[in-house]
Amino acid sequence: MGIVVQKYGGTSVADTGCIKNVAKRIVECKKKGNKVVVVVSARGNNTDKLIALAKEITDNPPEREMDMLLATGEQESMALLAMAIESLGEPVISLTGAQVGIRTDEVHTKAKILKVDEKRLDRELEAGKVVIVAGFQGATKENEITTLGRGGSDTTAVAVASALKADVCEIFTDVDGIYTADPRVVPRARKLKRISYDEMLELASLGAAVLHPRAVECAKINNVILHVRSSFSREDGTVVGGEEELHRENLEREMIISGVAADKNVARIAVFDVPDKPGIAQKLFVALAEANINVDMIVQSTMREEYNDISFTVSQDDLYKAVEVVEKVKSDIGAKGIAYDSDVAKVSIVGAGMITNPGVAGRMFAALAEAEINIHMISTSEIKISVIVKKDAAEKAMRALHSSFWLDQENRQEVS
Amino acid sequence: MGIVVQKYGGTSVADTGCIKNVAKRIVECKKKGNKVVVVVSARGNNTDKLIALAKEITDNPPEREMDMLLATGEQESMALLAMAIESLGEPVISLTGAQVGIRTDEVHTKAKILKVDEKRLDRELEAGKVVIVAGFQGATKENEITTLGRGGSDTTAVAVASALKADVCEIFTDVDGIYTADPRVVPRARKLKRISYDEMLELASLGAAVLHPRAVECAKINNVILHVRSSFSREDGTVVGGEEELHRENLEREMIISGVAADKNVARIAVFDVPDKPGIAQKLFVALAEANINVDMIVQSTMREEYNDISFTVSQDDLYKAVEVVEKVKSDIGAKGIAYDSDVAKVSIVGAGMITNPGVAGRMFAALAEAEINIHMISTSEIKISVIVKKDAAEKAMRALHSSFWLDQENRQEVS
Repeated sequence: MGIVVQKYGGTSVADTGCIKNVAKRIVECKKKGNKVVVVVSARGNNTDKLIALAKEITDNPPEREMDMLLATGEQESMALLAMAIESLGEPVISLTGAQVGIRTDEVHTKAKILKVDEKRLDRELEAGKVVIVAGFQGATKENEITTLGRGGSDTTAVAVASALKADVCEIFTDVDGIYTADPRVVPRARKLKRISYDEMLELASLGAAVLHPRAVECAKINNVILHVRSSFSREDGTVVGGEEELHRENLEREMIISGVAADKNVARIAVFDVPDKPGIAQKLFVALAEANINVDMIVQSTMREEYNDISFTVSQDDLYKAVEVVEKVKSDIGAKGIAYDSDVAKVSIVGAGMITNPGVAGRMFAALAEAEINIHMISTSEIKISVIVKKDAAEKAMRALHSSFWLDQENRQEVS
Repeated sequence: MGIVVQKYGGTSVADTGCIKNVAKRIVECKKKGNKVVVVVSARGNNTDKLIALAKEITDNPPEREMDMLLATGEQESMALLAMAIESLGEPVISLTGAQVGIRTDEVHTKAKILKVDEKRLDRELEAGKVVIVAGFQGATKENEITTLGRGGSDTTAVAVASALKADVCEIFTDVDGIYTADPRVVPRARKLKRISYDEMLELASLGAAVLHPRAVECAKINNVILHVRSSFSREDGTVVGGEEELHRENLEREMIISGVAADKNVARIAVFDVPDKPGIAQKLFVALAEANINVDMIVQSTMREEYNDISFTVSQDDLYKAVEVVEKVKSDIGAKGIAYDSDVAKVSIVGAGMITNPGVAGRMFAALAEAEINIHMISTSEIKISVIVKKDAAEKAMRALHSSFWLDQENRQEVS
């Protein structure tokens, strides 16, 4: 008994058979006495098909029209899902992002949710209806249709769960939870029962494709409990929450590392011989931010007295746009040269216990050296260490780290 | 120089190649100094595909969700068309029915346009943009998405043209104009240069699929000049207007008949032995109207002193719904029996000069008799005579009538 937000990804609603299965699952949840809001993605590879159509027309489609086009994907799947639920005898209504009142900023194709109006949702839930909400989309205050970019549907689900103060936000996907590493790469990887927001955030931002970091961030800020689970099984998946929700069995962590991940959608840009003066980094990264490019790792190395090299990573999609921006500010910041490399991957280890356990970085570098993997860039945070390696070394690196940090073993309490 | 509304049907935007062609044509019109608003249908058979998907889910999809689903079709095509125009360097914006402010009533899948708000359209036109509007769709005052049903996109175009006081509403389609008869059935059929609203209305309602009667009606009421033409050629098509716009070369019509048409999407229902009392017909047809069933021909024959038979026709799609309604009111109106037949077609001749030319009906029946075609029902109006015949006799009837009324000859002034 409570308010449950469920999110189903594209593979969960790929065809009408899948949609009927999902409908049953939703009705089950409703019949348990819950108020149910469902956020749904576009079917299967529909979004890719729409993008391909746009590319047939022009290499550089205007972003506003791209949003107009892509928003049809979720509208289609939610209408079909509503039909399937109705045919099971359950009252239901589907709502577009604009109809719900998912208000976003004006950055087309990468909009951010500013606010979810809960009035319409409340009214439909009070009327006893299952409410289907289009994921991935919203509308500006001028009622222009926007899409949220990567991780959009997960973020919609979290934002809706937050607005409704839902008891849980269930993220249904084609895997059955969060693993210590990608099981396709590391066969001995195991499913975690629970994981903290911060650990999940790091794992997610590292390419553990199950949950997008945006959604995790949004969940963390708004204290929304996530439950990542499979739409093809009834088994519990992995709960993502604050440390207090995780009810750890012992206070001190036995294991330091929660998981290992690799992200291949990464490219590295190096700016050489930048004068060592205040304001240089600011100019560079403000220009990148203004072009809506997300910069991930940043490393500045003082090599000589007066000049620095600044290296940073962006997603591969943004590489050429980023290089263009850097070329433009190059003379302004007094840089001598630019180089980039997209044949790289980011491999990371994540664990909340890391900060109190000295020697983790050392053990990581030792494991990589033993596997004869060259490290091109290093960046550390309180619960994560990431390295940039050559793309073809990424999977070998993951397996080496998984073994080195005993994730292969069965003694970690969070592992089910 | 003026305001031009162009409407492109599904075959005109079937694939990205077609869309690019249409874009060129729109930009041509804009470059002549016109303000251009384009109304666009869903691509090719996209709407049919969406309907098939819905049918895979349930035989009886809720109409609100059907509208939600179908509205994606035009949204997709208009976004793609906007991209194509933009790539030709012309500023452009696409707008959904809701965004334009195409306000409709609440009858899902068959909504009627109440009002088109011209403010947004004016603003975008003033900004020098080509405006693409989604055909076939609108929104209620609660912002629920509706679709307009058959002829919806044509009707959108006419409504938009009326709101903007456009100089012309060009209906682009896969044929190059209005013919005296369907050329696939009557090889000697010829294209008309001009035709009046009333004649077009009758021809359209008779299954000349080029223009839907709703759109013609809306054009007539609002005095919108239509130009029906091919999206695959630059040739002029057929202008549909009031008698005054047609600039007929001579005051008296030489020819009486403008065209011959057949409609096979028709079914006939007969209600037997209805007491001959006031209010009976009203009860029957009010009940049908409340079920949103359009009744076309109505024939009441007084056979005996106290009882009537009432026959009427509906579209085949509505047949079973109509029979259901009649069964419900049957005892209330005191009818003894019901019969129906969907193996029929309506064949009609249309011409504004008909009313002042006695003997047209006689010549029609003679021509049909000569061709050995049995007539099951007759209905006449000021500019039309329709007969119900067996479906397999429809095309033979059309050819017989076309010859009989000299439409085969070259001497009609409206024929190009």
